[in-house]
Amino acid sequence: MVKKTAFLFFLALLISSPVYAAPSTESLQLSVDLVWVMLAAFLVFFMHAGFAMVESGFTRAKNSLNIIMKNFITISVAAILFFLVGYGIMFGTSAGSFIGADGFFLNGVGDIGFFVFQAMFVATCATIISGAVAERMKLGSYILIVIVMTAFIYPVVGHWIWQGDGWLTTLGFSDFAGSTVVHLTGAVGALTVVLFLGARKGKYSGGKVNVIPGHNIPIGALGVFILWLGWFGFNGGSTLAADPSLVPMVVGTTLLSTAGALISSAAYSKLRFKRVDASLSLNGVLAGLVGITAGCAEISLGGSIIVGLISGVLLVEGITFLDTKLKIDDPVGAISVHGICGIWGTLAIGFFSVDTGLFYGNSAEQLGIQAIGVAAVIAWTALTVGGFTFIITRFSSIRVSEEEEVSGLDFSEHGSSAYEFKDTLLIKESISKNGELGLADRLNSLPESKTS
Amino acid sequence: MVKKTAFLFFLALLISSPVYAAPSTESLQLSVDLVWVMLAAFLVFFMHAGFAMVESGFTRAKNSLNIIMKNFITISVAAILFFLVGYGIMFGTSAGSFIGADGFFLNGVGDIGFFVFQAMFVATCATIISGAVAERMKLGSYILIVIVMTAFIYPVVGHWIWQGDGWLTTLGFSDFAGSTVVHLTGAVGALTVVLFLGARKGKYSGGKVNVIPGHNIPIGALGVFILWLGWFGFNGGSTLAADPSLVPMVVGTTLLSTAGALISSAAYSKLRFKRVDASLSLNGVLAGLVGITAGCAEISLGGSIIVGLISGVLLVEGITFLDTKLKIDDPVGAISVHGICGIWGTLAIGFFSVDTGLFYGNSAEQLGIQAIGVAAVIAWTALTVGGFTFIITRFSSIRVSEEEEVSGLDFSEHGSSAYEFKDTLLIKESISKNGELGLADRLNSLPESKTS
Amino acid sequence: MVKKTAFLFFLALLISSPVYAAPSTESLQLSVDLVWVMLAAFLVFFMHAGFAMVESGFTRAKNSLNIIMKNFITISVAAILFFLVGYGIMFGTSAGSFIGADGFFLNGVGDIGFFVFQAMFVATCATIISGAVAERMKLGSYILIVIVMTAFIYPVVGHWIWQGDGWLTTLGFSDFAGSTVVHLTGAVGALTVVLFLGARKGKYSGGKVNVIPGHNIPIGALGVFILWLGWFGFNGGSTLAADPSLVPMVVGTTLLSTAGALISSAAYSKLRFKRVDASLSLNGVLAGLVGITAGCAEISLGGSIIVGLISGVLLVEGITFLDTKLKIDDPVGAISVHGICGIWGTLAIGFFSVDTGLFYGNSAEQLGIQAIGVAAVIAWTALTVGGFTFIITRFSSIRVSEEEEVSGLDFSEHGSSAYEFKDTLLIKESISKNGELGLADRLNSLPESKTS
Repeated sequence: MVKKTAFLFFLALLISSPVYAAPSTESLQLSVDLVWVMLAAFLVFFMHAGFAMVESGFTRAKNSLNIIMKNFITISVAAILFFLVGYGIMFGTSAGSFIGADGFFLNGVGDIGFFVFQAMFVATCATIISGAVAERMKLGSYILIVIVMTAFIYPVVGHWIWQGDGWLTTLGFSDFAGSTVVHLTGAVGALTVVLFLGARKGKYSGGKVNVIPGHNIPIGALGVFILWLGWFGFNGGSTLAADPSLVPMVVGTTLLSTAGALISSAAYSKLRFKRVDASLSLNGVLAGLVGITAGCAEISLGGSIIVGLISGVLLVEGITFLDTKLKIDDPVGAISVHGICGIWGTLAIGFFSVDTGLFYGNSAEQLGIQAIGVAAVIAWTALTVGGFTFIITRFSSIRVSEEEEVSGLDFSEHGSSAYEFKDTLLIKESISKNGELGLADRLNSLPESKTS
Repeated sequence: MVKKTAFLFFLALLISSPVYAAPSTESLQLSVDLVWVMLAAFLVFFMHAGFAMVESGFTRAKNSLNIIMKNFITISVAAILFFLVGYGIMFGTSAGSFIGADGFFLNGVGDIGFFVFQAMFVATCATIISGAVAERMKLGSYILIVIVMTAFIYPVVGHWIWQGDGWLTTLGFSDFAGSTVVHLTGAVGALTVVLFLGARKGKYSGGKVNVIPGHNIPIGALGVFILWLGWFGFNGGSTLAADPSLVPMVVGTTLLSTAGALISSAAYSKLRFKRVDASLSLNGVLAGLVGITAGCAEISLGGSIIVGLISGVLLVEGITFLDTKLKIDDPVGAISVHGICGIWGTLAIGFFSVDTGLFYGNSAEQLGIQAIGVAAVIAWTALTVGGFTFIITRFSSIRVSEEEEVSGLDFSEHGSSAYEFKDTLLIKESISKNGELGLADRLNSLPESKTS
Repeated sequence: MVKKTAFLFFLALLISSPVYAAPSTESLQLSVDLVWVMLAAFLVFFMHAGFAMVESGFTRAKNSLNIIMKNFITISVAAILFFLVGYGIMFGTSAGSFIGADGFFLNGVGDIGFFVFQAMFVATCATIISGAVAERMKLGSYILIVIVMTAFIYPVVGHWIWQGDGWLTTLGFSDFAGSTVVHLTGAVGALTVVLFLGARKGKYSGGKVNVIPGHNIPIGALGVFILWLGWFGFNGGSTLAADPSLVPMVVGTTLLSTAGALISSAAYSKLRFKRVDASLSLNGVLAGLVGITAGCAEISLGGSIIVGLISGVLLVEGITFLDTKLKIDDPVGAISVHGICGIWGTLAIGFFSVDTGLFYGNSAEQLGIQAIGVAAVIAWTALTVGGFTFIITRFSSIRVSEEEEVSGLDFSEHGSSAYEFKDTLLIKESISKNGELGLADRLNSLPESKTS
């Protein structure tokens, strides 16, 4: 703001002075692209608020503080590590098309705006894990996973696919905004850690598959809206320039795919479970977003609707399959949303790309390349995360004690609780003391399922 | 992101190469206007999160999931239908100045950015209905209303007023950002459906007008803040270009009108009800936003404050009149906010427009034209929505059963509940078991009004 | 939107017409700078939603409505007063380098966009007070404080530092985005009013320092995320132009400082209190933001991490010292966040500025100038706020009655309550009626601390 008067002076010049040197169109191009990329970076940053609300709302009240702290720690650790080392590994000069070898501490990096945009991305990958391991993983162990994911595992994947000399880029692999780079990597990491961690107490007790309902779906739904909003920056900003023809297409496909996925997941849950399931539908929104992330720049608006419709159904089946068949306890459905739909979104390019898709060019070549990329990233992430998790489990358990899990991680890790509704509860007591019309009716109308 | 290296190469060119062809000022103009319209589109999209939180927070906990699902379904259905047919009806080549006749599936539509911006608008119109019919309308019936509103009724109104050849545009009717196009249309639709639907159980039982308090005003208040934020894009983006003189005026009038309305609704509720009523004041914010939407580009900053002050008082009187005199049950006050203030905002141009307003030009001609537009849109929307609702009521009731209403739509439609505060409730039990200082005092201090 | 056809016509021109006059690079510069400043203004506006959620979530449920209303009233009163008088005092022609003397009602002010951006800033200063005085101050008295803060006290400080002829600007004082102008001014005002107001009932009863836990930390955490997001506009927009080299640096330092502060406050609270304290860590985020606000444009990326790390530790010590040693009751920690870190952020320039910092230029001159500015603003704000508060306390108490405080300000000021969870409570009753596995275990696992 110290620049204010200079700015007014500059304005005056613009209007009056004939000797004033007009800004060049090159510098104007840099300015308008900057504004677009910054807008996108802010939206991607805001996605972390969305993740925090989704993960908190879809789990139990007694673990809310812990999940929220995990999200704040993730973005903070990721941003600093990406500055120190991650950016260099991801976008530094390529060593054998496999890993970046310079640009640490941003040495010699000119485009700070690009760093800022990328720094916002990094944490999303690790945050996916926090949802899957919710309600039972030690905070300290989670932080160790975040460090290795954001400082090494994710940047290497990014180097393969987003650095011009990466081996998958060279191969022709296409992932515009990260269905594979960000979402599949995060989901494979999540699945790997969950396999070490096991299910929450009571989730599969007595051979039954018990539902552990989230404690605040409205705040979770707000989180989904925030994620949808943020994704316009996630996908739209990946153009890296305010391209008047490309950007609207990317935003349009992102909007329509998600709309399709919400509709198909809602309709399919009604068909399959005789009710429009809110949790599945809200996850359906995320499924549609992940599903179009890879192809948002090369799939038509009509095609994006189909990609989204398929994403929504895959999500419902995926969550059901993991939970009831594989008995993998993923409290917020992160593995299905980011993993299954991440794979689908990456492969969808092979079918729906207007440039290389099977449905357009009658060639399955791109589809094959996409499959190779998916397989490579799954292998890399599973091996590195698995190896690292195995090592830390040698030193101490990554899981909280049964007593801590029962009392909730908010108490055991943070010595506090997320909510304090004494006031409203007192109101309620005065109500029950005075009785209320229709109270009994209402009570009886509650399905027994809610009471066990 | 696949474009990254190309981008760096492009940067390199900008800095070094003399042979590089500089971007044209025309393409730069397109780029900067694009960024502005995309920013506005994102803000308008985010308004749907605001609507969802307002409608959920201002109603009962047992209907939260249902309201939230309605909002997600509305934006999704609206976006896809607008792509398939709505855009063509609204902005296609005019057939008799009444309806668009081409551009379906965006065939031949070049400006995808404009489609994206408009697509975000569509759902707002239908979402207004979801608030008014909350807590008692069948989800399926609501979806049918959304389909006809977003695919036909709203686009026709938009064609009249926002397509250059529409008959109201030709007549000189002015509605810059949609006090009439969006808000009045939505409110008339809401009122019409509510008249078919009737009031919620217990709302007017025993001849009394009972207050059914919202369950989470803080989340509703967050929704109001989100709507206020989104409205800067709603109004500001309607410039469709990053005009350095027009845009700040539009944003300024939007800010000041809303500030005025919050102050007047808060002060007037204090005057009228001896307390600063939170619900009325929060609705006052929305009233000030709707009130300036039509004239935000042609009313002065000072004038916008007056428009807002009047909007706030109209809102308080409107809600009170509908609720206590007409006994029309509008759980969130949507009909007063969007209908009464939509009319006021449209007519306000006739008084306060610096170009054509009565207070500036001493001519009532514009005011007359504005009145014609208001009347036409009311008639069109009431007839079409009324006719359609009448038809579907022939096949089945649009209202849930009394038992479903009592148990809450979250159970009956979605088989679940929005909140699960067992954890915090257990904390509370341990508190009452151990007793707490001043607990009795607090209880006694609760007004009896809360207990009946 | 009435401009739509004109816009399409304009597009057509751009593409086809040879006779069309291309936009000048000067007008394009104005357009792109406008978009950037508007984006920033919207983000700063959204910060008020963040403040409302933080202040509401970190206090008790029975005062939520009151706090939220205070936030809405603050932004509304501030915007209108800044239009009427504040802008003139702050940016009008300087009278003796002390106060502005023209530009009231924006008379003769050309750059409305700059007014809009500044208008969003004003309320933040007063909102800081609302958090510190929460749960016990009369709404009417608070509004009086807001009026004098936003109409006079803050604009004068702004004139000294942000108007080119202000005496502190002339002296060389540097405060790019307002660590002192906005945050220190607000914090000193808060401290002053709190000294008149006293602590909340029960806070320091029986010589003990009692914890009064916030009622909804997740919504408070969302508020913190919103504030972090908004701060990118708060700091980034203070460039007032879409400068491709300056803007990314400002956004980058804002991101990294905050990340550092979250990590240091979380780690330090673990070290000091044997737990990762959520409230302190969330306040740590705000500490990192306030700490880098003054120097975000002249501190390096690496330096910003150090500034943030220090901010986080200062915050934890500051809150602990005020609460346990000075027994100053600041429900949300606003005085420490905005005051202590505001001072630190202002002085940090004297150490870390790459242009004038002690660590770069081996000169303490800038540090001295920064200290003078801090002292001057503390003196000015304490005297004016203190004098004004003293005067109004002569006419009536600024504090609610003990009975009102016990029952909560939501009832006493607004005749309502923020939450109504009867529905979920009924669910809970049916649960306790039917018993639940592990319920006893869970109960016993609750620390006794929660029960007193």
